[in-house]
Amino acid sequence: MKNALPVLFLFLLSYQALAQTEDEKMIKAIFDKTLTDGQAYDNLDYLTNKIGARLSGSPQAAAAVEWSKQLMESYGFDKVYLQEVMVPHWVRGTREKARIVNSDKLGTREVNVRALGNSVGTGSKGVLAEVVEVMGLDELENLGKKNIEGKIVFFNRPMDQTQIATFSAYGGAVDQRGSGPSEAAKYGAIGVVVRSVATVSDDFPHTGSLRYKDDLPKIPAVAISTNDADVLAKALKSSPGLKFYFETYCEMLPDVLSYNVIAEMTGTEKPDEIIVVGGHLDSWDLGTGAHDDGSGCVQSIEVLRTLKEIGYKPKRTLRAVMFMNEENGLRGGTIYAEIAKEKGENHISALESDSGGFSPRGFRMTGDENSIKLLSSWRPIFEPYGIYEFGLPGGGADIGPLNKSQGTLIIGLMPDSQRYFDYHHTDNDTFDKVNKRELHLGAAGMTALVYMMDKYGVK
Amino acid sequence: MKNALPVLFLFLLSYQALAQTEDEKMIKAIFDKTLTDGQAYDNLDYLTNKIGARLSGSPQAAAAVEWSKQLMESYGFDKVYLQEVMVPHWVRGTREKARIVNSDKLGTREVNVRALGNSVGTGSKGVLAEVVEVMGLDELENLGKKNIEGKIVFFNRPMDQTQIATFSAYGGAVDQRGSGPSEAAKYGAIGVVVRSVATVSDDFPHTGSLRYKDDLPKIPAVAISTNDADVLAKALKSSPGLKFYFETYCEMLPDVLSYNVIAEMTGTEKPDEIIVVGGHLDSWDLGTGAHDDGSGCVQSIEVLRTLKEIGYKPKRTLRAVMFMNEENGLRGGTIYAEIAKEKGENHISALESDSGGFSPRGFRMTGDENSIKLLSSWRPIFEPYGIYEFGLPGGGADIGPLNKSQGTLIIGLMPDSQRYFDYHHTDNDTFDKVNKRELHLGAAGMTALVYMMDKYGVK
Repeated sequence: MKNALPVLFLFLLSYQALAQTEDEKMIKAIFDKTLTDGQAYDNLDYLTNKIGARLSGSPQAAAAVEWSKQLMESYGFDKVYLQEVMVPHWVRGTREKARIVNSDKLGTREVNVRALGNSVGTGSKGVLAEVVEVMGLDELENLGKKNIEGKIVFFNRPMDQTQIATFSAYGGAVDQRGSGPSEAAKYGAIGVVVRSVATVSDDFPHTGSLRYKDDLPKIPAVAISTNDADVLAKALKSSPGLKFYFETYCEMLPDVLSYNVIAEMTGTEKPDEIIVVGGHLDSWDLGTGAHDDGSGCVQSIEVLRTLKEIGYKPKRTLRAVMFMNEENGLRGGTIYAEIAKEKGENHISALESDSGGFSPRGFRMTGDENSIKLLSSWRPIFEPYGIYEFGLPGGGADIGPLNKSQGTLIIGLMPDSQRYFDYHHTDNDTFDKVNKRELHLGAAGMTALVYMMDKYGVK
Repeated sequence: MKNALPVLFLFLLSYQALAQTEDEKMIKAIFDKTLTDGQAYDNLDYLTNKIGARLSGSPQAAAAVEWSKQLMESYGFDKVYLQEVMVPHWVRGTREKARIVNSDKLGTREVNVRALGNSVGTGSKGVLAEVVEVMGLDELENLGKKNIEGKIVFFNRPMDQTQIATFSAYGGAVDQRGSGPSEAAKYGAIGVVVRSVATVSDDFPHTGSLRYKDDLPKIPAVAISTNDADVLAKALKSSPGLKFYFETYCEMLPDVLSYNVIAEMTGTEKPDEIIVVGGHLDSWDLGTGAHDDGSGCVQSIEVLRTLKEIGYKPKRTLRAVMFMNEENGLRGGTIYAEIAKEKGENHISALESDSGGFSPRGFRMTGDENSIKLLSSWRPIFEPYGIYEFGLPGGGADIGPLNKSQGTLIIGLMPDSQRYFDYHHTDNDTFDKVNKRELHLGAAGMTALVYMMDKYGVK
């Protein structure tokens, strides 16, 4: 018996060493629950494979509104409701075609293009013209009207592959797609072809929004696949006088009534302090919007579902928001912030997942310096889950207006970004590209952060 | 002019702030080179799609030896040579089939199985018997001979999905596959069915090695897909007396002469200090061994190629080693260490990539405590590349013998592990599951670590 006391002592010591803080325990419970019993993946399966692509104004976008409302009602949250928003209704039309014409070496060659979102169509007459290749908007002024008028401008600057964060590389190339058409129209161009903003070399064009300037002619614009952009650039070297033809039938129809879909767990102590977690329900019409942004929607729903399932009663009001029309208008995010301001709602923070359903790596944020410091101080309890990057600037498109209108701390889930721009805005953004564990780790990471913000506030 | 001095001062200050250390610059150069000009992905395409699966002793394994030798010769390294190794020659045979028989609800139902590597086959008579389901080796003793003799033991413990590091979950389940057949034979079982050691629920069985004990009967064993393991478990609940039938034609043929393939950049200052970087050239016969471990091979070659391309002259001798026969014998790794010891070679460290070609997250290591501290102190210069996890225990199967025989510091590249056990040892381990940027980031991370170890040593 003489050894009993030391053994007991050792036992107590090791118990002490193993004792987890309450937060560590709660976060482990959140991850365990999500990884073993999460429904985000099955929900994404339904959203992408049963409903499909969800461009604003489409019947599928309406179906997604109804589905997400019913789903969140079935989970028994305190409130589920719709918020009206008028959205643009752009349609791609029946077909798109394009070819290189009169190339010395290629003769006539079909290439893969997709109209850019919000573009006008060419109709059956198409656009046929010589091509001016440029690497960026800044080359247009030097070239001037004499070199551009009556031609097609081909923006061909690729994403910078040396950037580790592919979103930075995207940011460095996407001006060609967003502003290129109007900038080219300024100098008399009659059409625009944009190299797909993509990390991958393949045959799939990446669509995405253009923004026409009101005071300039609206000229039709298409994205060309990265492989065909290379083919075109090479052909132009040997045949500078070749022509390019494309034909699109897209058009902008009158605005349509749609909705943000909102669910709430009402706070028990500070119900007037609101924490938003969200994604956008609309997607492009190519693929089925699995990573962009079906993942963010099902993850946001999962945040509330998990907290409810493990019996957590939030101090503050938690809101899951499925924003409508991020892709080609941002109307949902804009009206959400407007109504919040009208009602005098106090949004202390908003977390968006709109960077794909990949393994979570961190949270990017914009807001009060002290808030960012506070959230960054939580890094150690997230690191065992592979989430180690805190505090770099960022947020999310749909929650940006909240930051502008009431200074809300906005936060973006930052997953591993290496594969996102292989699939983004293409026929390849489909459910099979999403890994269940990666999606659920992201959802659990978001849930853990919402738990911490609810418990400690953000200041 | 009065403002000139402050402006100059600010300029100098910002220059100072921007000045990178030599190591940071070199590591940036390594990543830039690999991400823009890397050949690992194209090499993997060749290895997997032109050569294919490379089970030890197969013609494809021989082709891979020849290909990797020629490839490394073409890169102009200082030496390229083969190291003889006799390897086991297990063949799967022409077909495998299995079915549940006499289930109340299912009647007879075909299920997906694959023989475990090194298993004996059943031949055309097959094995037909009742099934005893267990969740682990420890249940066998309690059940005893009276419940097991003449039956098929079905090991059905799944991987623990709550582990964030899937390799830990794998380690917690794989004893059923490795030791299950002999442990079951001890109690008179006549066959073994093992639940695939996998993170995913699907129809693809995951093969892998079993290890027979010499003093026990060698009974045939198969892996069953996770979906069908669930089907079988459910059927057993309603029909405990159902039977299971399987038929395999695998067999172990006489050993075959094969090779480790080795390339060297000879050190300029300390040529007798050797740093190894490697992967294993053999793979299972299912799929094409893209993640396991074609990725590790092409990454290891890329390490030397990149350093040579950027004009780096190593102080120490760097060796890329393509080990043979990791999967079902570890003969290549074993003989490499034996010969190193015979020759009195001083291996200061060995880095293996054998956890898939996914985004790199860190390095795991086993060895001298000071070495681990030193390498962990380098974390800050790796973190901008998403590599933040240093110092947890680990290494690699092929380099393990070096650690045992001469205490070499062994290091394993640790990529994001969420998808690995979806594909591992199945028909799905194919080139299309590998992302180019992820593979190249891994190669660049390895190159950066080899550069640091070469420059500073490991103590």
